[in-house]
Amino acid sequence: MAVQSVESSTTSSASVPGAFGPAVALSCRECGERFELGPIFACEACFGPLEVAYELPAGDPEGLRRRIEAGPNSIWRYAPLLPVPADVAELPSLDPGLTQLVRADRLAGELGVTGELHIKDDSGNPTHSFKDRVVAIAVQAARTFGFTTLSCSSTGNLAGAVGAAAARAGFRSCVFIPHDLEAGKVVMAAVYGGDLVGIEGNYDDVNRFCSELIGDPAGEGWGFVNVNLRPYYGEGSKTLAYEICEQLGWRLPDQIVVPIASGSQLTKIDKGLKELIAIGLVEDRPYKIFGAQAEGCSPVSAAFKAGHDVVRPQKPRTIAKSLAIGNPADGPYVLDIARRTGGAVEDVNDEQIVDAIKLLARTEGIFAETAGGVTVGVTKKLIEDGLLDPSLTTVVLNTGDGLKTLDAVAPTTGPSAIIRPTLDSFREAGLA
Amino acid sequence: MAVQSVESSTTSSASVPGAFGPAVALSCRECGERFELGPIFACEACFGPLEVAYELPAGDPEGLRRRIEAGPNSIWRYAPLLPVPADVAELPSLDPGLTQLVRADRLAGELGVTGELHIKDDSGNPTHSFKDRVVAIAVQAARTFGFTTLSCSSTGNLAGAVGAAAARAGFRSCVFIPHDLEAGKVVMAAVYGGDLVGIEGNYDDVNRFCSELIGDPAGEGWGFVNVNLRPYYGEGSKTLAYEICEQLGWRLPDQIVVPIASGSQLTKIDKGLKELIAIGLVEDRPYKIFGAQAEGCSPVSAAFKAGHDVVRPQKPRTIAKSLAIGNPADGPYVLDIARRTGGAVEDVNDEQIVDAIKLLARTEGIFAETAGGVTVGVTKKLIEDGLLDPSLTTVVLNTGDGLKTLDAVAPTTGPSAIIRPTLDSFREAGLA
Repeated sequence: MAVQSVESSTTSSASVPGAFGPAVALSCRECGERFELGPIFACEACFGPLEVAYELPAGDPEGLRRRIEAGPNSIWRYAPLLPVPADVAELPSLDPGLTQLVRADRLAGELGVTGELHIKDDSGNPTHSFKDRVVAIAVQAARTFGFTTLSCSSTGNLAGAVGAAAARAGFRSCVFIPHDLEAGKVVMAAVYGGDLVGIEGNYDDVNRFCSELIGDPAGEGWGFVNVNLRPYYGEGSKTLAYEICEQLGWRLPDQIVVPIASGSQLTKIDKGLKELIAIGLVEDRPYKIFGAQAEGCSPVSAAFKAGHDVVRPQKPRTIAKSLAIGNPADGPYVLDIARRTGGAVEDVNDEQIVDAIKLLARTEGIFAETAGGVTVGVTKKLIEDGLLDPSLTTVVLNTGDGLKTLDAVAPTTGPSAIIRPTLDSFREAGLA
Repeated sequence: MAVQSVESSTTSSASVPGAFGPAVALSCRECGERFELGPIFACEACFGPLEVAYELPAGDPEGLRRRIEAGPNSIWRYAPLLPVPADVAELPSLDPGLTQLVRADRLAGELGVTGELHIKDDSGNPTHSFKDRVVAIAVQAARTFGFTTLSCSSTGNLAGAVGAAAARAGFRSCVFIPHDLEAGKVVMAAVYGGDLVGIEGNYDDVNRFCSELIGDPAGEGWGFVNVNLRPYYGEGSKTLAYEICEQLGWRLPDQIVVPIASGSQLTKIDKGLKELIAIGLVEDRPYKIFGAQAEGCSPVSAAFKAGHDVVRPQKPRTIAKSLAIGNPADGPYVLDIARRTGGAVEDVNDEQIVDAIKLLARTEGIFAETAGGVTVGVTKKLIEDGLLDPSLTTVVLNTGDGLKTLDAVAPTTGPSAIIRPTLDSFREAGLA
């Protein structure tokens, strides 16, 4: 699957002035070749991944800061820094973002952190994962390109995010999942009334099928959020960086711990931080980015520890299913960023993930999905190993909701006691 | 179980200046007798329920409006109107509230609404139900009274809200549930690490046991959010009214549709709207409040339709379990309000609830719990019956998250097709 040219049935960016705000082109991350903004995702010259290039607002950081602060309580407050039109907040959208940055003093106490520790809790998004951010940008691009169907391959969070976003924005949706997904996830993906198609095969088969469909007349007019809209989709993750800095009082964190699935989120957070520095919205000083994986799917962590530049694919086997990408496309970029910023990539096993979910719930009242257990568990390990400085300001990402991965904690989470409805029975239980 | 005097181990309001902000007393809703602010909930004179009485800020509505708008993105922006100290936002709390008010044009189209239709979507709260609002106020009162354990009886949403809030604020929690609750709900209630006690009996048995425990030395120093802290707890629901009006641009909705469990929420929304009028934050003009119940637990709706002033208890039998209170304490007050404002109380059956959940998901991308199906379903019915004016501004409450009541839609929600991973198989399915 390679280059996709702008379909005749869709609209090119040139014909819709301002449709992409400050974005001016797509540029190849490998060779730097530039392309007109369109529903394409791979470089015609070298097949490298395309990303959005900007002419960002310059010269008046104070004015921009005030404009952002007066904006809506969603990612659209950062419209001046995103590939969206200036009036995007008036268009129907789930309006994700501006989730809580929780000052985690009780967790800090347990981890021996003496500096500021914060959890960026993205379970507060409309469908309770960070996927709402990336899908919102993809939906806007789909609108500009004249697509009428939104699609994706998914094993869970993304299916719900696309189904919900399509419903709100008035798109048809058609989402592809492995046919043997857990019943609860199927309900979450199907309830928004779009088409949900079970594919007889595993997630790789689903992905291969979607790539075929994009090149086929049957897929004409379809926006696959994580394929032909991927350059726009990915930009949604920048908003995590913007929000963290704004919520810290327009200040960079010293250290930030990010989960790694494809690695895209981590690279976009780095991109977002660099943009804020370039525009002058935050002071230019060093920050470290740390990547977090599950031991059962740790190709990037393994490469980091071995000192390799390439990532050797793994067959995932972990309870952190939302991070279970064995051949992460952005793995090499993640390695670059971790090394350049002085961070690291680490992993924790399933038992440590469950322990970390419970630790976060017990200390801060945040019930994270397994990906949140991974970042909190890795933070603990990095501190113990002396790689993360407990005296600095650290932000740890929780990208999803524990309600979606109840099975992870269910076997070890239950009542303290079962009693008869009498005071004697209560006293015998020793809980008074 | 009657009056509870301030325990010697706890603190009375008089000793903590400003601890309750503009609140000046507890007053009996039946006889008007006043009491000092304390952990009491029933009138010593007539056993009527106590509620918080205020001296609200007067004379400068513009200044108050600006102060609110500059406040935190949570219920604490309304601290000047709540029984909390002015610096409450600096204390550890889940910081619920300021959930989205969603302009629901697509749902409006399906329901034949020509005016503005909005969904107040409280699934966006930290534990994904409106209970975070009421618990947050109760926690603050518990702090002032010197309680060290937070407790409640619950069948689901409240248990999670109390567990999470206690964890964040550094309280011990001990929550009581029927021993045979669904496994998923037990996990959600237990994951925050407090004590969770299963009671061999039904919800009534759990409630009775809690009432006994309050009067016993074993319960000393315990704040039961929905019993001895109930007057404070209830005030949290006022914030729904404040937010709706602020999000409408400091404007009253013409019509508002509220679910009824105990009826407390509806009465507090009315109280909140009246306060905003009294202070001058919104224009004084009529509004109508509508109550929504499930047919399988419709004691207030039945009384409304029969023209009765008293509510005859029912044995609940409905999928809307978060509304299944057969003997609602505030039923008579709800009847008063519906009649005084020109509203109504209506009910829908389980099938209509499921249909309404799916309608809301399909049109607006909001996956509501069964209580949201009740309000949307009742809205549809009220329009069909000519009781709700489709040309006016209407707000419908969704108080919880569909992820918590997956069983309601699971039997009728699934894939459109299961196919092999080939284009031929996809074309055969007829979804292109």
